[in-house]
Amino acid sequence: MDKLQRNERIAAVLKVLSDNPNKIFTLGQFSEMFGTAKSTLSEDIDIVQKLLARYQFGVIETISGASGGIRYFPIMGDEDVQETVQELITDLSKSERIIPGGFLYILDVIFSPEMVSKIARIFARTFYNKDVDYVLTMETKGIPLAFMTARYLNVPLIIVRHNNEATDGASVNINYVSGSSKKLQTMVLPLRALKRNSRIVFVDDFMKGGGTANGIIELAKEFECQLVGTAVLVETAEPTKKLVENFFSILTLYNVDDENMAIDIRPSFKI
Amino acid sequence: MDKLQRNERIAAVLKVLSDNPNKIFTLGQFSEMFGTAKSTLSEDIDIVQKLLARYQFGVIETISGASGGIRYFPIMGDEDVQETVQELITDLSKSERIIPGGFLYILDVIFSPEMVSKIARIFARTFYNKDVDYVLTMETKGIPLAFMTARYLNVPLIIVRHNNEATDGASVNINYVSGSSKKLQTMVLPLRALKRNSRIVFVDDFMKGGGTANGIIELAKEFECQLVGTAVLVETAEPTKKLVENFFSILTLYNVDDENMAIDIRPSFKI
Repeated sequence: MDKLQRNERIAAVLKVLSDNPNKIFTLGQFSEMFGTAKSTLSEDIDIVQKLLARYQFGVIETISGASGGIRYFPIMGDEDVQETVQELITDLSKSERIIPGGFLYILDVIFSPEMVSKIARIFARTFYNKDVDYVLTMETKGIPLAFMTARYLNVPLIIVRHNNEATDGASVNINYVSGSSKKLQTMVLPLRALKRNSRIVFVDDFMKGGGTANGIIELAKEFECQLVGTAVLVETAEPTKKLVENFFSILTLYNVDDENMAIDIRPSFKI
Repeated sequence: MDKLQRNERIAAVLKVLSDNPNKIFTLGQFSEMFGTAKSTLSEDIDIVQKLLARYQFGVIETISGASGGIRYFPIMGDEDVQETVQELITDLSKSERIIPGGFLYILDVIFSPEMVSKIARIFARTFYNKDVDYVLTMETKGIPLAFMTARYLNVPLIIVRHNNEATDGASVNINYVSGSSKKLQTMVLPLRALKRNSRIVFVDDFMKGGGTANGIIELAKEFECQLVGTAVLVETAEPTKKLVENFFSILTLYNVDDENMAIDIRPSFKI
């Protein structure tokens, strides 16, 4: 096979890094992949790095030491965060989203591959450099968001379920009280799903009272794990006091007025 | 801002295409993004195309007509398919995966972002050029696979659920009989989730009797939609006669022998 030209090599390096976020590659691996000296590759990577910075595509980090190398993290730039939040607000404020009873229909947004990828990049930004081992979510609606966040962090996804299945083996079951409806519910996680002493983050689409997030903290304790972060797409303004503190949300839902067909949803943070 | 060098431009074009699989971009869009003449970009895209072919990263297609442009599809090459199937067989044959009762534990595989991405690329290959409008799955375990397949096809994901939620509005409910346990179950899909006359594909992690897949066909009919493909990661060898025909599976599970701690799982197709 012909040797790669520099312009091809740069594109190939960026493609491999970009398809494998947060995964460490050694210069030796690239050198083997593309048949090029490590010194040449270092120059290539400098060019890739500048390009990423210019378009806010993310960053390349150098990890030193025996297991060292480089890794790509798709941190979203401030401008893109702002644009994404604005896009969400505009879309979620449309009156046709109002469901009788004062609910907001968001399934199309949280199941849209393009939008989920953007939201997950915002979540991943808040978990960056927190040494996360797993992303947890509670079935069902938050799974795409949690999966994409796990993909950007390059860690396994864990789905906590309401019921046990024979195919999953022995499990830990805990009861928790839903923060909004005060209903007693069950959380189930297979014993072998989660390694002890891990650092986990919790991702979900929606938070009202914070009961689920609170249940996750209890579940984490049973597995001797530490919850190091929580991120949700939408929190409700009421109740103002949630069962958990220290969580990150992108949007706050103030009101769904199904009489006047008006939705009041705003960014949860200044950007 | 300085003008981009050719090597940077090629990398940037590939990055944008690669982050947006199956999305059509016009040369005009790239021209605006990178401040370069369309003729120059055409040459860049030729280089990207050759590079993709060389590393089996996928293909770039040219769409002609008024809404035309180019789009990238991450078709996995035959060698990579073979390697992925072999990797799955080796991993899933490990005796520690046996759950008492003769079940196989696969959650870590179907929730691993890296492995899910590979499997979804194999699924997407079989749905390529089928003009798919939606990827459907039945909650819960197949969601990551279905989501990633939807991402590669650049179409919305639809999650069919067992129960209705007030927040999702009016829904279509159908009853179906599980193919293996003969248990009557319910499938629920919000009325507004799916546009009439769409072409859908069904993705799941596991197929035993084919009852769920059969239910999806019924559900599709209620929405006046056409099921144009079904893909599962693992089918069981028994029953040999499933409730549905014409589905694609990657692996076939012949036996889980929890007495002798042996697993018999093989590729479903010749590669």
